[in-house]
Amino acid sequence: MFIARVVAPVVATEKHPFFAGRKLLLVKEFLPDGSLGERTLVALDCVQAGPGDRVLVARNGGAVDDVLGQKDCPANVIIVGLVDQVDLGGQASGAY
Amino acid sequence: MFIARVVAPVVATEKHPFFAGRKLLLVKEFLPDGSLGERTLVALDCVQAGPGDRVLVARNGGAVDDVLGQKDCPANVIIVGLVDQVDLGGQASGAY
Amino acid sequence: MFIARVVAPVVATEKHPFFAGRKLLLVKEFLPDGSLGERTLVALDCVQAGPGDRVLVARNGGAVDDVLGQKDCPANVIIVGLVDQVDLGGQASGAY
Amino acid sequence: MFIARVVAPVVATEKHPFFAGRKLLLVKEFLPDGSLGERTLVALDCVQAGPGDRVLVARNGGAVDDVLGQKDCPANVIIVGLVDQVDLGGQASGAY
Amino acid sequence: MFIARVVAPVVATEKHPFFAGRKLLLVKEFLPDGSLGERTLVALDCVQAGPGDRVLVARNGGAVDDVLGQKDCPANVIIVGLVDQVDLGGQASGAY
Repeated sequence: MFIARVVAPVVATEKHPFFAGRKLLLVKEFLPDGSLGERTLVALDCVQAGPGDRVLVARNGGAVDDVLGQKDCPANVIIVGLVDQVDLGGQASGAY
Repeated sequence: MFIARVVAPVVATEKHPFFAGRKLLLVKEFLPDGSLGERTLVALDCVQAGPGDRVLVARNGGAVDDVLGQKDCPANVIIVGLVDQVDLGGQASGAY
Repeated sequence: MFIARVVAPVVATEKHPFFAGRKLLLVKEFLPDGSLGERTLVALDCVQAGPGDRVLVARNGGAVDDVLGQKDCPANVIIVGLVDQVDLGGQASGAY
Repeated sequence: MFIARVVAPVVATEKHPFFAGRKLLLVKEFLPDGSLGERTLVALDCVQAGPGDRVLVARNGGAVDDVLGQKDCPANVIIVGLVDQVDLGGQASGAY
Repeated sequence: MFIARVVAPVVATEKHPFFAGRKLLLVKEFLPDGSLGERTLVALDCVQAGPGDRVLVARNGGAVDDVLGQKDCPANVIIVGLVDQVDLGGQASGAY
């Protein structure tokens, strides 16, 4: 799992039926210094996240199956939490 | 999952029987700035994509099994949608 | 699996129910020279690790399922041990 | 999946019984410009490939299980096809 | 799978019960030119490898399950063979 920033919704009209009615978000991974890295991924949302939110992202198929309650989902990246803070020795990290 | 551009069909005559009659496409991953990155992958197609299309790609075996309705497919990369736009705060992203 | 240093706890109040009551830690991977690399991940803890600890981290869903005794956990990174030393030919490695 | 060039056979006498009698090949991944990249992997062969061949490589355990007809094979990289050409708009790509 | 050099044993006294009595080794991946790369991993050993050995490493959970004969092992990297040589057109590769 890793921490990322939600960048934008992704719109795909022609797609596998599994994705009908599901929200897809483009997320960008944080680097250790709190800046945003180069890597982006498209993730399913299960916590009502939106652009600008700092989120916890999981990357395996089993995670998606469990969260959605069905087997073998055609997706392998999912947002599982909203990150409130990363506690660096008592100091809350605002940037990261 | 990630967003990619379809570059070209891949032709392989000598191959595992699973791939007979299936379309394989070479795809190139987008970078966050909307340019195309260095990474290419070969993906199965399930949405009738073609060269030039902007597509959503999933990368796990379970995804392929589900889309094709069989277990343990000898492939782990599949195109699951055509991306219409990435919504950056109301402005549609044409390049990305 | 890889060796990492625990950097900080991660606090997420809005999250998938699976994570309620579970400790999440931000970890940073070691490089071969004993310094800390750029890559960070968020891991579940199962050995009571804390900030500053040198830990052994596994990265697949099956590992998490086994350690927690349930199937298809929505997590794929877990701390499975505290590393005491890496034995480089009789000399204990303090830094790494 | 990705396209690679077979570089050389790999010989391992002391190994897990699963690998007895199976051919292992060192493969090097192609970059988008048609040159060979830095990444090498060791793959099982199921299409009688040899050094110099351009091949299609899959990278998950399920792929190997299916091709070999047994569960939980201790291998996760397999050659599933010989690539004849990558069709770049009617022009066959000889180098890539 | 990939070829690596065993660097050192890893000692972890506080750990998940699965790892009791099992040997963990730090391995460093080879680059195509025969030099050692930056990437290190911690692998379970099943072929009695030791520091300095050139080994074949597999990286998926199914591989570990099969070799150890149990399901859902909390580990995903395992040494499955000792590499004797990589045959580059009749010339044995001593360095790689």
